[in-house]
Amino acid sequence: MSHALRGPMLSFSADPSTAGQGAYEYLEDGLLVVENGRITQMGDAARLLPTLPEDTAIDHYPGKLIMPGFIDLHIHYPQTQVIASYGAQLLEWLEKYTFVEELKYSDPAHAAAGASFFLDELLRNGTTTAAVYCTVSPGSVEAFFAQSHRRNTRMIAGKVLMDRNAPPGLRDTPRQGYDDSRALIEKWHGRGRQLYAVTPRFAVTSTEAQLEAAGTLKREFPDTYLQTHISENRAEIAEVARLFPWSRSYTHVYDRFGLLGDKTLLGHCVHLTEPEMQRLWETATVAALCPTSNLFIGSGLFDLASLHRAERPVRTGFGTDVGGGTSYSMLQTAAEAYKVMQLQGQNLPALEAFHTITRGNANALDLGDKIGRLAPGYEADIIVLDPLATPPMQHRMATAAGNLQETLFVLMTLGDDRAIHRTYVAGKSVGA
Amino acid sequence: MSHALRGPMLSFSADPSTAGQGAYEYLEDGLLVVENGRITQMGDAARLLPTLPEDTAIDHYPGKLIMPGFIDLHIHYPQTQVIASYGAQLLEWLEKYTFVEELKYSDPAHAAAGASFFLDELLRNGTTTAAVYCTVSPGSVEAFFAQSHRRNTRMIAGKVLMDRNAPPGLRDTPRQGYDDSRALIEKWHGRGRQLYAVTPRFAVTSTEAQLEAAGTLKREFPDTYLQTHISENRAEIAEVARLFPWSRSYTHVYDRFGLLGDKTLLGHCVHLTEPEMQRLWETATVAALCPTSNLFIGSGLFDLASLHRAERPVRTGFGTDVGGGTSYSMLQTAAEAYKVMQLQGQNLPALEAFHTITRGNANALDLGDKIGRLAPGYEADIIVLDPLATPPMQHRMATAAGNLQETLFVLMTLGDDRAIHRTYVAGKSVGA
Repeated sequence: MSHALRGPMLSFSADPSTAGQGAYEYLEDGLLVVENGRITQMGDAARLLPTLPEDTAIDHYPGKLIMPGFIDLHIHYPQTQVIASYGAQLLEWLEKYTFVEELKYSDPAHAAAGASFFLDELLRNGTTTAAVYCTVSPGSVEAFFAQSHRRNTRMIAGKVLMDRNAPPGLRDTPRQGYDDSRALIEKWHGRGRQLYAVTPRFAVTSTEAQLEAAGTLKREFPDTYLQTHISENRAEIAEVARLFPWSRSYTHVYDRFGLLGDKTLLGHCVHLTEPEMQRLWETATVAALCPTSNLFIGSGLFDLASLHRAERPVRTGFGTDVGGGTSYSMLQTAAEAYKVMQLQGQNLPALEAFHTITRGNANALDLGDKIGRLAPGYEADIIVLDPLATPPMQHRMATAAGNLQETLFVLMTLGDDRAIHRTYVAGKSVGA
Repeated sequence: MSHALRGPMLSFSADPSTAGQGAYEYLEDGLLVVENGRITQMGDAARLLPTLPEDTAIDHYPGKLIMPGFIDLHIHYPQTQVIASYGAQLLEWLEKYTFVEELKYSDPAHAAAGASFFLDELLRNGTTTAAVYCTVSPGSVEAFFAQSHRRNTRMIAGKVLMDRNAPPGLRDTPRQGYDDSRALIEKWHGRGRQLYAVTPRFAVTSTEAQLEAAGTLKREFPDTYLQTHISENRAEIAEVARLFPWSRSYTHVYDRFGLLGDKTLLGHCVHLTEPEMQRLWETATVAALCPTSNLFIGSGLFDLASLHRAERPVRTGFGTDVGGGTSYSMLQTAAEAYKVMQLQGQNLPALEAFHTITRGNANALDLGDKIGRLAPGYEADIIVLDPLATPPMQHRMATAAGNLQETLFVLMTLGDDRAIHRTYVAGKSVGA
């Protein structure tokens, strides 16, 4: 049975930084027809309404803005109780807060409850797809995929690989990590909407043997993802140089083990050197930038202009990095990305920001033909934004109304979870 | 008639950065008795309850946190429709967005509506006192004080002085600016809870003659405030050097006209040099730091550690700087201050942050004997915070509950207007 959504709607078909106005379709009174979890039609309501069967249910959202669900390129589901932990920078922060919480996820009940809260919170914030770190415990991955499968959300997740520099209860071995990952891939990758990411945490917590095993997994299962962290913090970079004395750079470590590529997501990329950016470009590797986290943990300012340099544009996208990040909201993430860029005299127009957190991040995940757009054939992960969600937004919209770019900028600068009026997963309304 | 508030309560009597645990009083089940707009008693509920008259009304807030109202050291009331304006740094931003909006405030109806929204929004965010810039139009100040007087809020405000580098409708002259300011001081300074601040916008928009006139006002009315901007942005600093070729520094310009002193609030102070900080310290001038604005407009990172250097500690506090700032919330302002400091390897413990936005800012305003604390004799501007205001806060509090410092850090990192459960102005509950 089909149903429809009606209201102002916006979707990107190209990157506005290069395609300008031609990058997006904006309908003042659009209609989106959804059937079996997919979008079957999109167009002006005036044109499409007469063609619908009489009994088609229509959710009407006048004054709102219908968009594809947001996509988060980097987030840790076991860190919902790590968020807002005081006063440490990366390496201390991992030991003091993160590992303590992650240990709890070997308990299946704790993991299930955590995954459940986490997914509901993402959906409440309009995020319908995310690339998610679980913990070292394979059970934490089971719990996550089970909850995601139940909600029918398109999620990417993986078991963290750590075989050193972590407490005993959070360490695997190259062999165990390989076997567990392999079993999880075979069970979950491509089951329903779930996708797997091979997930060595970062070079500090994996031996060469484990990075080697991760490379093997990636070769054996070429359509899985690989996600890890890189170049977030200067002490971390120094530690990687110390642990891998033969390496020319942090990027070189991952490169050596065959971990770069067009389905690899590297979290942070704050302090990359020119040769490293060159190499990310050559391998089509994706830089997942996490502004609220970089500011909160004091890691530094990512340099998007350098990453995008015309002669070797690195593929990029945004992630929240909860719990290092301070918000589940991709709106607030875009707002903080804007600040990171302003501090360096760079620009982030609202159209580019909204492109990034929808179609841009979908392309970064190589899912640009499935999610991140409102168009026939796409999976119906849809959100309804409310530009009047709070008093300051209402007040500001008195001058911004009718101007799409200003409306988007108000949404990202002043908006938060309250600006997500409704979320649809594969065509079904959730929550609210 | 007296009434009382009961619940967990927190108030600072000293600076926790120096006084540690002795800096604050925390009562798990406190009682605050209010009479005629003032606090008359504070203590453990178990002790005080039996002493109250039978018919005393008690507002009971178990699970919440009762604190003094927040204080904002720097904000522009005519910029509620400037907030979240795209893409400019300071000087362009003023011309492109701010001046356009401020022109509208010569219309008394527009000014009254703007002031009304603004004050309600501050109270909704738990801010009960602020140092406020109006526009060049004396009517904008009338409108503001009238609305504040009606709400009985303790506010500091002043007519902006600008006699150059601004559009015609927003310029006064040294004479006119002096006369208008004088009349406003005589009418409003000390009327009810209203206080006046002589308000030259900044050195770029005032001639020497006008700065001279501002200095005269300050000498003639020594118990008024003086508020202006300084050293926010590098292009601004260069422009000041060009406009005042005799000056040794930006600070020197204000110093030369007698504008520094212990009731002077200098907004921003992002790029001050050592001799300038030295001079602020000598004159007991206050630096009003505005983190959300500095990040949003890309002005830079204030250096609180340098400002506080032990041998010449500059008096400091925090402001939102709406509309350059992106939030009316002093909680979110504290969170962004934390980020500014983390980026420089500095610390901002939650106790220090909450001290700053209550007693610290009250002291910065020389009002430390009237507001910013919960203690007998203090004006009863009180807020009730809710550490469980949103799902992520509820989830995080599962591990933070019972730990005051963690609770405060969760409130500032994840909290926003929703974390303000109730606001009392001079003992009266407003809104909600």
